Amino acid sequence: MGWVRSFRNNQFIALNDGSTNNNLQVVAELGKFSDDTLKRITTSASLKVTGTIIPSLGKGQKMDLQAATLEILGDSDAEKYPIQLKNRPTLEYLREIAHLRFRTNTFGAVFRVRHSLAFAVHQFFNDKGFVYMHTPIITASDAEGAGEMFRVTTLPFDEKNEKTPRNEDGTVNFKDDFFGRATNLTVSGQLEGELGATAFGEIYTFGPTFRAENSNTARHLAEFWMIEPEMAFCDLEDNMNLAEEFIKYIIKYAIDNNREDLEFLAQRLVDEEKQLPQDKRSEMGLMEKLEFVIKNNFERLTYTEAIDILRESNHNKKKKFQYPITGWGMDLQSEHERYLVEKHFKKPVILNNYPAAIKAFYMRQNDPQEGIGQTVAAMDILAPGIGEIVGGSQREERLDKLEARMKEMNIPVEELYWYLDTRRFGTVPHAGFGLGFERMVQFVTGMTNIRDVIAFPRTPGSAEF
Amino acid sequence: MGWVRSFRNNQFIALNDGSTNNNLQVVAELGKFSDDTLKRITTSASLKVTGTIIPSLGKGQKMDLQAATLEILGDSDAEKYPIQLKNRPTLEYLREIAHLRFRTNTFGAVFRVRHSLAFAVHQFFNDKGFVYMHTPIITASDAEGAGEMFRVTTLPFDEKNEKTPRNEDGTVNFKDDFFGRATNLTVSGQLEGELGATAFGEIYTFGPTFRAENSNTARHLAEFWMIEPEMAFCDLEDNMNLAEEFIKYIIKYAIDNNREDLEFLAQRLVDEEKQLPQDKRSEMGLMEKLEFVIKNNFERLTYTEAIDILRESNHNKKKKFQYPITGWGMDLQSEHERYLVEKHFKKPVILNNYPAAIKAFYMRQNDPQEGIGQTVAAMDILAPGIGEIVGGSQREERLDKLEARMKEMNIPVEELYWYLDTRRFGTVPHAGFGLGFERMVQFVTGMTNIRDVIAFPRTPGSAEF
Repeated sequence: MGWVRSFRNNQFIALNDGSTNNNLQVVAELGKFSDDTLKRITTSASLKVTGTIIPSLGKGQKMDLQAATLEILGDSDAEKYPIQLKNRPTLEYLREIAHLRFRTNTFGAVFRVRHSLAFAVHQFFNDKGFVYMHTPIITASDAEGAGEMFRVTTLPFDEKNEKTPRNEDGTVNFKDDFFGRATNLTVSGQLEGELGATAFGEIYTFGPTFRAENSNTARHLAEFWMIEPEMAFCDLEDNMNLAEEFIKYIIKYAIDNNREDLEFLAQRLVDEEKQLPQDKRSEMGLMEKLEFVIKNNFERLTYTEAIDILRESNHNKKKKFQYPITGWGMDLQSEHERYLVEKHFKKPVILNNYPAAIKAFYMRQNDPQEGIGQTVAAMDILAPGIGEIVGGSQREERLDKLEARMKEMNIPVEELYWYLDTRRFGTVPHAGFGLGFERMVQFVTGMTNIRDVIAFPRTPGSAEF
Repeated sequence: MGWVRSFRNNQFIALNDGSTNNNLQVVAELGKFSDDTLKRITTSASLKVTGTIIPSLGKGQKMDLQAATLEILGDSDAEKYPIQLKNRPTLEYLREIAHLRFRTNTFGAVFRVRHSLAFAVHQFFNDKGFVYMHTPIITASDAEGAGEMFRVTTLPFDEKNEKTPRNEDGTVNFKDDFFGRATNLTVSGQLEGELGATAFGEIYTFGPTFRAENSNTARHLAEFWMIEPEMAFCDLEDNMNLAEEFIKYIIKYAIDNNREDLEFLAQRLVDEEKQLPQDKRSEMGLMEKLEFVIKNNFERLTYTEAIDILRESNHNKKKKFQYPITGWGMDLQSEHERYLVEKHFKKPVILNNYPAAIKAFYMRQNDPQEGIGQTVAAMDILAPGIGEIVGGSQREERLDKLEARMKEMNIPVEELYWYLDTRRFGTVPHAGFGLGFERMVQFVTGMTNIRDVIAFPRTPGSAEF
């Protein structure tokens, strides 16, 4: 049983059941089936065929199914079916009919690879004895400040005769909301993950996270999936080692289990890039790039070293950066990261030990170092064509230093008593990182728009299906 | 490295790293370490110990670690540490300090089992070639009517000088909301899952779902995780077979991989039930129950047969049901389901072919049957002690019948055009089910309150941590 991909010469049906892009060729012997039946064999019609597997006479496949019986399970009106292969539907058009795009070769391949990568994530951590934690999606904590948040509420603010409960001063009284307080969608499971790691030793999360940022780009989603491992008895070095091993493992898993789909996507990328001038095309093919990544060490360097490289680069001296390298302490822009990864090192880079001032409160404060400002034990992994794919750090396990930093940054210390309890009762060195799953899928599939690697993208102005 | 669970005779440290409830006994030879160090070895303090593994002189473990060096990584003030084992902390109390409860034997065991069950879910479907789909969490569709929903919004309704955009008639103008329309948290990924199944053949989801119902019970959560497989070319019988195989597989996986933790939880349940009168205690121990479930066929019967059994039962005749059996067509209450499962069959039951009137619009309409009303190809799996653990059905694949039913039930046909497209273009027989993951974890761990099997439960009035 399957869906018709094409029907040639009133005789050869390419049938597909969604498990692979390789169709089964069904041979409907001339004269064996009624004209009425043959007429109904249109693109995307569903069929049930029985028969005999025979060596194929044609090229492109090893065997055919010689049909003995053929039943139309569901018709598909060829005039109305929205995907007409003759017109070579664009990715933009297919995004509008995302409910049907899984039936194309491109999206079939992308989502089978996505599946494999997700399974590899679980396999990797399970094999190492990590505990999979489901951290909360609805959260009352907005302490981390990782980004703008979506409000979650059951208050009847949408009613005409507005019944939103209000305090005397006119502000909303969230005591009457479902959870008895204001709640939001989570931006990260890290803080709760640390609670797990300081009990189970090693945990990971893999769940949806949210950003209410009005970023209508090919790199941003309002709803995306994130993987966040967190490890007790682990420092920055261990953390970088684990992240690199992890990325290589899941890429290798996809190569080993989805070679056909990846080769299809590699060819798709070559075709897509044909319209670009030579110097804008990828230097390596997709398969070559993936093999390269798993076979070579990621380049590790400190933020301080990176600033030196950028400052001394011809690119900077010729003023080709939109944001010039002003010196130590500046936040790196995407163009700087891309320069390091794509031009200078030409491989994934792990940047580490960033200035404290541009990083989050929970990152471990390094010992002072002569000639530079205060740094923290942070690390970001930057991938060619994608940019930041992992962000992590060793966490500040020293209660006094953590509290002092929180106060400096106006993070509410009392509200996060539960987080600080891990530092009060048997604190341990620990570290973790977050990997944006869709960026990883993009990297492996070569899809340039993040909306093409998640089933039903949520972006500003769009929550279709 | 690990955390101190106990310290006996100023000499024997039970050290635990979270990977198992079996502590490593560290022997700190008398006189070898300073009094100052020994004083700091308190419950939940973290230590780094090096030394030699030697055969244990004591009972209860095979080997000890004879300490050569011993470093306190983090102190834990014995007076302030909230978990005092002498007092035998209750589950209710531990729920209030959910950020630390993972450090107890009970919750260590529960969450390691939860991890294994989650991994087994992925393993089961991956081995069968299912594609893991991440269906959207934020959704504009409220068409399924599976339950009350949480609103997701970025409108500034919480501000004092209220800036919520309104239409002329006073209603909220959701065009100005983040997604350009009103959005909610999903109650199910099923409809989107069907889009995947009619392209990939077989898919499953495993993600969070939400209910804004004010149910403060031991069986309900506002945020819980659900697994929803959906299969093309699949009927009700196949669906029941898959669900039964699936449940047995993940239970067996836990038995094979978490025997120690399950045996601990079995003993915990025995202890918990000691306070109950004999006739309220479980007839089988936890391990016995799990073994029984994987070794016996689930009882399958139709709704119509179930009504007959219930009507003829002594329980009904003696008017012991709060809701008497009024006849065919009535919705079954939890007490009826429990009677069937716990008293009559004493095993899991798959009830099927329910009256259409009490089931959802998308379930396949059965052919008329003499003597009874219209039924649909639905199935629910009921488990002893838990109740409904799976709900599923063959889906209505016939466009005309589906549209007619939607109109009868006031489901907006135009809005769900994307769902109906699967019936317009190559429709196929298909089926699927949903399994509430926390209920499954309860069943396997024997925990009676659902709040004790999810890390940070979300319930009315509570969104802590």
